Amino acid sequence: MKNKRAVVLLSGGLDSAVGLYFAVSKGFDCYCLIFDYGQRHKKEIECAKKLARGLKCPYTVLKIDLPWKGSSLLDKRMPVPGRAGCDKKPGGIPSTYVPGRNIIFLSYALSYAEAIGAGAIFIGAHSQDYSGYPDCRPEFYRSFGRVILTGTKAGVQGKALKVHIPLIRMNKARIIRLGVRLGVPFGSTRSCYNGGKSPCGICDSCRFRAKGFREAGIKDPALAK
Amino acid sequence: MKNKRAVVLLSGGLDSAVGLYFAVSKGFDCYCLIFDYGQRHKKEIECAKKLARGLKCPYTVLKIDLPWKGSSLLDKRMPVPGRAGCDKKPGGIPSTYVPGRNIIFLSYALSYAEAIGAGAIFIGAHSQDYSGYPDCRPEFYRSFGRVILTGTKAGVQGKALKVHIPLIRMNKARIIRLGVRLGVPFGSTRSCYNGGKSPCGICDSCRFRAKGFREAGIKDPALAK
Repeated sequence: MKNKRAVVLLSGGLDSAVGLYFAVSKGFDCYCLIFDYGQRHKKEIECAKKLARGLKCPYTVLKIDLPWKGSSLLDKRMPVPGRAGCDKKPGGIPSTYVPGRNIIFLSYALSYAEAIGAGAIFIGAHSQDYSGYPDCRPEFYRSFGRVILTGTKAGVQGKALKVHIPLIRMNKARIIRLGVRLGVPFGSTRSCYNGGKSPCGICDSCRFRAKGFREAGIKDPALAK
Repeated sequence: MKNKRAVVLLSGGLDSAVGLYFAVSKGFDCYCLIFDYGQRHKKEIECAKKLARGLKCPYTVLKIDLPWKGSSLLDKRMPVPGRAGCDKKPGGIPSTYVPGRNIIFLSYALSYAEAIGAGAIFIGAHSQDYSGYPDCRPEFYRSFGRVILTGTKAGVQGKALKVHIPLIRMNKARIIRLGVRLGVPFGSTRSCYNGGKSPCGICDSCRFRAKGFREAGIKDPALAK
């Protein structure tokens, strides 16, 4: 029998929610891993827990400390770029980049996967992000696959442990349409970087989300509330 | 001017102490990163702090949580293999392997390095370990180098961020002789997996250390106390 146990990185944002529903739709027995890494948008964590509970998936919230910050998502003295104050040059990397974030997340995920004998890790990284974030690009995931092969017990012993990136080539509108088909409760997802009571509407994350819903021709249920 | 700032992974054991002294001897301005990951051998952490202070290097102790355990170093219900009860088959991986440990450590190190603009990471992994631990083998470090190139801001922007593994091809005796030349206070290092008041003398780590000192023809100052 194929190993259908999976660790799913779940942030509470739109993409990882679709990633989780996708993994479940493919018959994976999903163990969700949620990080509290000092991000401004802590409401995401509550959304992530709710999503996992909704699918009856076990979840673990890991508090991780990045005392050196180095990102406007972690450092309250740095402004989060918005419509008026975007700090991203064309082809540049936005200040919301958290150094090594996805690498740290994936490292924990593979540790967890090895410990519970899971053969898969799901992460909702996708193409729209990789215009800015280096750790959302396909070549990074290929490199990380080599790290698993060479640096883990599972890899060395020839057991399958694969990082799945089902959304990597999709844009936001396509991800949203997929989510609708899979029954993702988008009203229970949260994407705003600023972490206020309601989405700010001007940070990159809010703008990509709004554009995605607009292009998909769907009303964002998180805003409708 | 070449970037001489480095993040050094420091455990308080013999190898990472030599790694730190080596980096300092090469003119690196070292920032030590010490992990409290629930290991039995917590005394190592005190040794690590003492080593960093001795060289006037700033250090950060990061508490990290691996709630899934999966290793006899973390799970007190699992015995640490010793002379009588070694669980390692020839070519196998010992139960002291912590899933993904060095990958997690390096991920934090690269996050720290990016945040402080360091161009180097030092880790004291070496050949004697890689007979058992997959994340101590040269091919793993080559793969991790690709992860940095493809998945970090520094890598993508062409800034140097290199993982240095100066001890990788050395055996314990050679590492000890190098340490003696560099003035490493071996009395302030600690390697026992069992974490008792004194080294147990029977775990893999104690036995490798004893063999190394014997082969180097040097008395272990940690035992002389």
